[in-house]
Amino acid sequence: MDVPMYVTTFDNTDSKISLDNIATDAPKDLSREAAEGRLSALGTEMFELQDLLWGARTHAVLIVLQGMDTSGKDGAIKNVAGFLNPRGISVVSFGVPTKEENEHDFLWRIHKHAPRRGEWTLFNRSHYEDVLVVRVENLCPESIWRERFGHIRDFEELLSEHNTIVLKFFLHISKEEQKKRLLEREQDERTAWKLNVGDWQTREKWKDYRDAYEDALRKTATGRAPWHIVPANNKWFRNLAIAEAIVETLRPYKKIWRKKLDDIGVRARGELDSYRQKRND
Amino acid sequence: MDVPMYVTTFDNTDSKISLDNIATDAPKDLSREAAEGRLSALGTEMFELQDLLWGARTHAVLIVLQGMDTSGKDGAIKNVAGFLNPRGISVVSFGVPTKEENEHDFLWRIHKHAPRRGEWTLFNRSHYEDVLVVRVENLCPESIWRERFGHIRDFEELLSEHNTIVLKFFLHISKEEQKKRLLEREQDERTAWKLNVGDWQTREKWKDYRDAYEDALRKTATGRAPWHIVPANNKWFRNLAIAEAIVETLRPYKKIWRKKLDDIGVRARGELDSYRQKRND
Repeated sequence: MDVPMYVTTFDNTDSKISLDNIATDAPKDLSREAAEGRLSALGTEMFELQDLLWGARTHAVLIVLQGMDTSGKDGAIKNVAGFLNPRGISVVSFGVPTKEENEHDFLWRIHKHAPRRGEWTLFNRSHYEDVLVVRVENLCPESIWRERFGHIRDFEELLSEHNTIVLKFFLHISKEEQKKRLLEREQDERTAWKLNVGDWQTREKWKDYRDAYEDALRKTATGRAPWHIVPANNKWFRNLAIAEAIVETLRPYKKIWRKKLDDIGVRARGELDSYRQKRND
Repeated sequence: MDVPMYVTTFDNTDSKISLDNIATDAPKDLSREAAEGRLSALGTEMFELQDLLWGARTHAVLIVLQGMDTSGKDGAIKNVAGFLNPRGISVVSFGVPTKEENEHDFLWRIHKHAPRRGEWTLFNRSHYEDVLVVRVENLCPESIWRERFGHIRDFEELLSEHNTIVLKFFLHISKEEQKKRLLEREQDERTAWKLNVGDWQTREKWKDYRDAYEDALRKTATGRAPWHIVPANNKWFRNLAIAEAIVETLRPYKKIWRKKLDDIGVRARGELDSYRQKRND
């Protein structure tokens, strides 16, 4: 697999991931202007890849977005998934589980939303919450959540074996950047409805969450379902880095999808010809 | 409700709808350039309306797209729904029912996909197929499909009573335009995979389908779930007309949604203030 330029990708469980050693800022040698130009080209390419896959229906694409509050999951959806044809992408946001969901194993509600072949699904939060918020807030015993790393690896392997291309992104912001973003929300009357005491309460446990993330990233980074760690302090860079990782991952499939479409085309043309011949007989 | 400029809207079941008397071409006094400028402004407004509703969560939006093969349902999704934030819109395409779906009433598979409050759902084909293709192809007895008009009205009224804003679009193309589009597909190697004998077979029953459509439109046009008939021979005009009908329908809700967000904002700010006060005590 090509490694994207701007994200740090981990694809095996022996990776020693230390978030403190991974940048949260955009690289200094990249201008915002250049990034936006590049994003727009990648957006066009992503749309074309989506269109090919839509017709070929050989694979599915699953994108998982995780990150601390305000890390920009919603912004990434708007600005990256916004390039796609809404026909072929579903965005699923996972919040606090319902009573029914809690009466099943933690992957039950997730599995339902696995993408079908030809389509993309984007998870805004995901099964990873069950080893993050559940762990930090002590919502279940350690003996339970600790088993989940293995279940997650097995689950993602199952998807991948059935031709689902899995991309997982951790949007990496600094603690200072989070504070800045939370305070900005308070300045604008129009966004006051987004204010949430919970964001500040969660922030007090920043270190616990970071540790839980490091552990989760380490234990679930695999070749078939790698983690991409995206410097996310700069929104324009975050968008570019995600788009680039997606396109770099999918580009190698382009030939397979094109070939499949050509085969379908030849067959379809043949059927049409014989239909016409019969009608003229 | 404001009546959009460019579509013919039917909102009661006594409407005498005659498709032959409704234009399929764009109005002569509108240039493509002007239409595209206006579409872009409407797209921005639609995005803002979606964002307000996403926060306010008081209503849901259901858009139903129907039309003959090649009438541009997919194009409309790409070009109109493409303005929206993918976070808040789901596109559901209904094809031939599965075995499980057929073992239920015809609205069972549809109801599942009704939009939740705050969100939009777009149906690419819908429960209307059960009074269209099912009727023309004799897939069930007349005594059954004829009852469905009433069931559809009741179902859409139920949705509407629970704050779902229902917009139904019939994309209206001429028989000549369909032929042109089907033949165009054959010219391009890259789109040959879309060729389908079924399109030509269905075309032979053009008049039956048109009659079935007229009947369905007449019997299910209601004040709460009106039909918008869109001249769809020109793609650029089709996009504009759909966007305009959506924005005209939603614009009157803008004040309610803004007010709701402001109320949420005041409450959220209050909670945040008392949280801070407690921490400083």
